[in-house]
Amino acid sequence: MMAVPSSRTPQIAPVVAPVVAMVGGGQLARMTHQAAIALGQNLRVLASSTDDPAAQVTPNVVIGSHTELDDLRRVALGATALTFDHEHVPNELLDKLVADGVNVAPPPQALIYAQDKLAMRQRLDALGVAVPRYAGVASLDDLDHLDAFAAQVGGAVVVKAVRGGYDGRGVAMARDLAHARDIALGYLADGVPVLVEERVELRRELSALVARSPFGQGAAWPIVETVQRDGICVEVLAPAPALPDHVAAAAQQLALQLAAELGVVGVLAVELFETTAGALVVNELAMRPHNSGHWTMDGARTSQFEQHLRAVLDYPLGDTEAIAPVTVMANVLGAAQQPAMIVDERLHHLFARMPDARVHLYGKAERPGRKVGHVNFCGSDLGALRERAELAAHWLSHGQWKDGWEAHDPTVPKA
Amino acid sequence: MMAVPSSRTPQIAPVVAPVVAMVGGGQLARMTHQAAIALGQNLRVLASSTDDPAAQVTPNVVIGSHTELDDLRRVALGATALTFDHEHVPNELLDKLVADGVNVAPPPQALIYAQDKLAMRQRLDALGVAVPRYAGVASLDDLDHLDAFAAQVGGAVVVKAVRGGYDGRGVAMARDLAHARDIALGYLADGVPVLVEERVELRRELSALVARSPFGQGAAWPIVETVQRDGICVEVLAPAPALPDHVAAAAQQLALQLAAELGVVGVLAVELFETTAGALVVNELAMRPHNSGHWTMDGARTSQFEQHLRAVLDYPLGDTEAIAPVTVMANVLGAAQQPAMIVDERLHHLFARMPDARVHLYGKAERPGRKVGHVNFCGSDLGALRERAELAAHWLSHGQWKDGWEAHDPTVPKA
Repeated sequence: MMAVPSSRTPQIAPVVAPVVAMVGGGQLARMTHQAAIALGQNLRVLASSTDDPAAQVTPNVVIGSHTELDDLRRVALGATALTFDHEHVPNELLDKLVADGVNVAPPPQALIYAQDKLAMRQRLDALGVAVPRYAGVASLDDLDHLDAFAAQVGGAVVVKAVRGGYDGRGVAMARDLAHARDIALGYLADGVPVLVEERVELRRELSALVARSPFGQGAAWPIVETVQRDGICVEVLAPAPALPDHVAAAAQQLALQLAAELGVVGVLAVELFETTAGALVVNELAMRPHNSGHWTMDGARTSQFEQHLRAVLDYPLGDTEAIAPVTVMANVLGAAQQPAMIVDERLHHLFARMPDARVHLYGKAERPGRKVGHVNFCGSDLGALRERAELAAHWLSHGQWKDGWEAHDPTVPKA
Repeated sequence: MMAVPSSRTPQIAPVVAPVVAMVGGGQLARMTHQAAIALGQNLRVLASSTDDPAAQVTPNVVIGSHTELDDLRRVALGATALTFDHEHVPNELLDKLVADGVNVAPPPQALIYAQDKLAMRQRLDALGVAVPRYAGVASLDDLDHLDAFAAQVGGAVVVKAVRGGYDGRGVAMARDLAHARDIALGYLADGVPVLVEERVELRRELSALVARSPFGQGAAWPIVETVQRDGICVEVLAPAPALPDHVAAAAQQLALQLAAELGVVGVLAVELFETTAGALVVNELAMRPHNSGHWTMDGARTSQFEQHLRAVLDYPLGDTEAIAPVTVMANVLGAAQQPAMIVDERLHHLFARMPDARVHLYGKAERPGRKVGHVNFCGSDLGALRERAELAAHWLSHGQWKDGWEAHDPTVPKA
């Protein structure tokens, strides 16, 4: 990267750019690279393959595994900070990196609360933060804990793998006690401890996204509503519609407080349940850019990807203000049936209908239910934006307009 | 890029992404890569070195020269379209690529009007478009044309190299006839023909930025004012302040008409003089993303970089609407004196003062006067945004606040 001064150009300053190492080559790393480009930084990615979404678009790729210490050391070597596209790096390996002198951000003692759902529940409980009632089942010998807990909460429980879940995987709603035991047995047989929780009666799900720097600065984006289908986030409404100001402020405050208490560095997403009684209960934590923050790429002054870089490098944080009254994000999920048109052709048609669509594709092969991209729409009419976002995402997924689109088709004459 | 289907994942769709080849590895290619990532496309760059701004951030780099046919062929091989970060590729090489079957966008017969200032003047003249009075001086034998022209327009002339100029290079204001002859002699001795023009009495400079697709769709961004210092654009005000609506509409119409008449594919920037009499006169044309469009990265629904990709690939064009009442862009230029702080440290301080600054750095060594980045500020108060943009760019260039900043320093108590 250093330019060699010559006699013709006596005043060249070498470019000394920070290097951020990111474990994981998925879409979060891909979009972080876009932000790193603007800031003049170098993102170096540990990817499992050159086909990974981030590996396709950056020259600074280490191919390896996030469970191999040597590979982690290779990507961390000389980096200003090491951060994450996912939370699946074993904590004991991170401790070794810290011992090597690597600046792991977020640090392992914070990240554990995004990796281990039981540790998270216990810590939040200790901090007095509202969480669903829960019990841990460490091994097959502890299955009676599950029985006792189910009896206590009166039936419907949620069974979660303590580690390794994502996008709804590792989380199951049990129909009854026998079903709960079956699910738990599956995880426990694989050596994965289980968390059982009461099923919260909820109005909707919210997300409080914040960032925190090592210096201790915090910044919160507006609270958003996340719409789930089959355990996967399909849509995000920013800001969360009709959320009272004092509730939104309390949710931001909670997330900032958690970031500080846990020592988070980088972006923290606090997934929240808004109960039917209007209370907020913490569901999950993520310590990285998060699906509930993809709207910030087009809808906020500073995107979550730039903010994550700023936070892990201990820059002052950016303005989190929304730049439109409403932004709606919809995920593009791989369809069950492979569409007849390739994605590029679908994109042509989408752009013809919707010149205001902000499209972000991840370069991923389309498997059913897999997140392969997202679209953002910014404006002021929530209903209209939501309809456009849903239609656009459906079209990009399936290559056919959703039922009901006909009424919006400008080429069809009105009856 | 293709994923190999296995028995476990029967419904994988291969990723078939368009490849856009771009000649030149400068900041325009760098920022185009950011846009290509979002659209799931592959940008392949012909760079002169791995240190080039775009080569630092994309894995798809061909190292070579834009004046070598073999290198051009290497970058073009298999690409959906070949486009440009600058206009310095010899037209005869482009003709050979076209003969090879390469989709050159813009095509050579359009690009010539961005490469050859005399050809451009003659063509625009023929189209009835207002241009300054001019004369061509093809060789040393034609110097009497210069004398005759200077006599005709009455003194002050501008002398331009017909080819190869950029950022004010290749353009000189002659003090008098002797000076004009001196400048012309320099170019002519190097075999570069010369264009002499009358010096237009101007109120300010404007830029009309549009895009055109091969299908023939056109899209125009709001007209902007470009502020020049020493022949280099230092600031862009979007939209151009106090420009009457009918003049703005006429300027957009002119640029769209020129794009269609010349057969432009991609972004076209029409640099305009607003004369003291209020008329618009065409100064220069550029057929690529342009400095006067950098504000669109943060201030418009669709950035010029995404739009250029959409146009060269014949996608429907994106919404060009401004997303803030005012956006001010300021270029960060390399300082005459190397700043004491490295750019990363300057960035820290800037972000501490201005969390709303949208910074774009190019990864370039800092030579005096060289464009190494830009900053955008969006909002509604032109005066305040302009002041912030100038201060931010000055700080990033020099590592010291501009005189007068003290009054704005929030850490200094009011007297």
